Amino acid sequence: EQKQSSGEAGNEGIQRLFFLQVALSPPVICGFLSSYQPRLGMGFRPNGCLASPQETLMGKYGDNSKLIYELQDQGGELLALRYDLTVPFARCLAMNKITNIKRYHIAKVYRRDNPATTRGRYREFYQCDFDIAGQFDSMIPDAECLKIVHEILSDLQLGDFLIKVNDRRILNGVFAVCGVPESKFITTCSTVDKLDKMPWDDVRSEMVGEKGLSPEAADCIGEYVQLHGGLDLIEQLLQDPKLSQNKLAKEGLGDMKLLFEYLTLFGITGKISFDLSLARGLDYYTGVIFEAVLLQQENDHVEESVSVGSVAGGGRYDGLVGMFDPKGRKVPCVGVSIGIERIFSIMEQRVKASGEKVRTTETQVLVATPQKHLLGARLKLISELWDAGIKAEMLYKKDPKLLKQLQYCEDTGIPLVAIIGEQELTDGVVKLRVVTTREEVNIPREKLADEIRRRLEPCSLSVQSCLTL
Amino acid sequence: EQKQSSGEAGNEGIQRLFFLQVALSPPVICGFLSSYQPRLGMGFRPNGCLASPQETLMGKYGDNSKLIYELQDQGGELLALRYDLTVPFARCLAMNKITNIKRYHIAKVYRRDNPATTRGRYREFYQCDFDIAGQFDSMIPDAECLKIVHEILSDLQLGDFLIKVNDRRILNGVFAVCGVPESKFITTCSTVDKLDKMPWDDVRSEMVGEKGLSPEAADCIGEYVQLHGGLDLIEQLLQDPKLSQNKLAKEGLGDMKLLFEYLTLFGITGKISFDLSLARGLDYYTGVIFEAVLLQQENDHVEESVSVGSVAGGGRYDGLVGMFDPKGRKVPCVGVSIGIERIFSIMEQRVKASGEKVRTTETQVLVATPQKHLLGARLKLISELWDAGIKAEMLYKKDPKLLKQLQYCEDTGIPLVAIIGEQELTDGVVKLRVVTTREEVNIPREKLADEIRRRLEPCSLSVQSCLTL
Repeated sequence: EQKQSSGEAGNEGIQRLFFLQVALSPPVICGFLSSYQPRLGMGFRPNGCLASPQETLMGKYGDNSKLIYELQDQGGELLALRYDLTVPFARCLAMNKITNIKRYHIAKVYRRDNPATTRGRYREFYQCDFDIAGQFDSMIPDAECLKIVHEILSDLQLGDFLIKVNDRRILNGVFAVCGVPESKFITTCSTVDKLDKMPWDDVRSEMVGEKGLSPEAADCIGEYVQLHGGLDLIEQLLQDPKLSQNKLAKEGLGDMKLLFEYLTLFGITGKISFDLSLARGLDYYTGVIFEAVLLQQENDHVEESVSVGSVAGGGRYDGLVGMFDPKGRKVPCVGVSIGIERIFSIMEQRVKASGEKVRTTETQVLVATPQKHLLGARLKLISELWDAGIKAEMLYKKDPKLLKQLQYCEDTGIPLVAIIGEQELTDGVVKLRVVTTREEVNIPREKLADEIRRRLEPCSLSVQSCLTL
Repeated sequence: EQKQSSGEAGNEGIQRLFFLQVALSPPVICGFLSSYQPRLGMGFRPNGCLASPQETLMGKYGDNSKLIYELQDQGGELLALRYDLTVPFARCLAMNKITNIKRYHIAKVYRRDNPATTRGRYREFYQCDFDIAGQFDSMIPDAECLKIVHEILSDLQLGDFLIKVNDRRILNGVFAVCGVPESKFITTCSTVDKLDKMPWDDVRSEMVGEKGLSPEAADCIGEYVQLHGGLDLIEQLLQDPKLSQNKLAKEGLGDMKLLFEYLTLFGITGKISFDLSLARGLDYYTGVIFEAVLLQQENDHVEESVSVGSVAGGGRYDGLVGMFDPKGRKVPCVGVSIGIERIFSIMEQRVKASGEKVRTTETQVLVATPQKHLLGARLKLISELWDAGIKAEMLYKKDPKLLKQLQYCEDTGIPLVAIIGEQELTDGVVKLRVVTTREEVNIPREKLADEIRRRLEPCSLSVQSCLTL
């Protein structure tokens, strides 16, 4: 008996299987990547660490730790599947004593969770991370991370978006000046994190009720975390009589100002919001944090719009590498994680809404025979086409009917048919048929591959062109 | 305390990390794929199933089952990591009632084993599978699988190779006519499988000693399994007084003859050997089986040659889908698995042996400043280059020394430097410097991106060009 609840793609909704098959295929992944190829090559080295000892992942994800998949080694050693790409990266730096690297990593991460396919939540899904590790001048790598997010979301034309930015030091400063004891900073932070899903009143109740803050402290926090803006807000807070007295907050605000200067030079401040409600759930952030969200489009013709929430997030984690180094040596890091699958969910929705037909193969030509006993001729011709780099298919039947072969092209969107019959064999030609127009023309056999190429626009590997007919 | 034995790449040998980072990076994977792009698009749809219920994987891999990684679901359900891509695919077909599909799948598989990096054995590694499922005329899809293996190994220029072909029905026929009881077919098969690592005498001892065959049966098997050849051998065995009396063997030999006819039309029989010693360890094969091995090259200048053994393998598994279907409905399948990582090991060795320098980034230009207080100018220029699709980097320092910036290019192989100083800002130009020749030329700022592109050959994404300088 098969269980329907397991982690297999097939069980997480057959309707998704089809699109995801195409979307996550290497050609499309390649296409997706090629849209930020400039990024990938640019100093970012590919890098990936695999399954980790369980203790590696403990105490880094806050409440999310319960979602870590555990497994046992051959020798009984406890291992765990990646929850994200950041913690294994930090461990990898420490283990290999790397103090300076730019890397990217595209890989699957795992959540020991009940999948919720309609909301784009799966147990196993791809993430794409960019990280910059090393001791550098303030906010330069941080600005590059934000530029990357801006670039990817712009290039993929996913619609309007906003990148919220904050700093853990500013948040902690707020907590401090509002009278929250330091021992409650992390737990207060995770409550603030719920502001994107809950109204302030509910968040306030949780602070006072569950977390045990005083009503005054909660109200004080409320005044700050509802603020958002740009350079003006930074300047205002730098003058704030309470906050400007806090060393951490002042440092954070100073860096935030510098960051906005750099983002202005990059020309991307239009989509950046300094937002004091942004907290990020994970424990390991120490400085700048950010999260990109797609904005609901007014002119969107999508009827049932699936909210996909955040599509990218990240921040600075200066303490994480030190946690894995035997001598506690720190390596400052900043990184961003792109939710590739969430982005594909949105693109899927778009394609569906547009009514465009999705092709699942890129076959250029079907090799067909009009009479019986010509399997050998088909095999020989298809072999020639394959060797010439043409994407050719044939039916796996000895003597298929011509109509059936033509119907297969209609069904699968194959644009051309190369027909080889007795007459064509005698004449040394192949009949090339255009499926849509039914036009037929005899081509000398040795020129067939070139003719097929000539007739088909080269399929660039962009996501668009691979997904649509 | 960090354990050195876990599955992380960093722990499996730092020397491998570097190459694998490059080799498994999306650009190179893309390059690798693009060399058989014609294949991937051609009717083969991308497809992948993920972690499976544990019982799914049981009883399909023979002795190898002990290498399956187990893990627990949130609800305590037992799951297991993929051991290969075949069994999850078969389950996927059954669950989704798919009776006809061509698919490929590139993904990681897992072995609960002690890694042996020098022999190219890891706990987590990539495989690339092509499978054709459906009821088709005999041996046509099987021939295509062999053509794919031949094509990939030829295209990648990995040196001389041989594809061994056999059929489980022929092997079982041999066992039957040699007097092996049917209950011992599978276990005898796994002993025959050791012939590539052990001499016949040792295999014979195992048959008689451990497996309890009679010495006569073992000797009889020995006469057959040491045979290899081509069409002539098939004809000879079809006339064999004993074997031709066995129904299964006769069927297998008839299909083998058909297969060789098709392979002759494909023009690839030169690298194919009908080899009766080929057994393949896994339980699920039911018909044709095959395995590609690289041959030791005589003119190889590699001093310490790492034996990588088989680089591809596969066969027909007509019964596997039925094992997952509630009503036992069968879907005949044939497929091939390409050992991508093993292939990369060989390429790594080649690159090392050739003494070629491996670049780890594709950065085209470094944006540099010759004076202090020009960070803003650098950020603005690099942003322009990024937006124009140029792969540009800069040092993350406010005021780096010019010499240090030039040295960085030397160290990392960046070919060009775009220098922007006070004079250049005044003149509206950028000084473009060729690192190797030290030639410098002023370029109008708006023409810089085009000039950089013009000066650099477009880096095609072939594996070669990405790996070498």
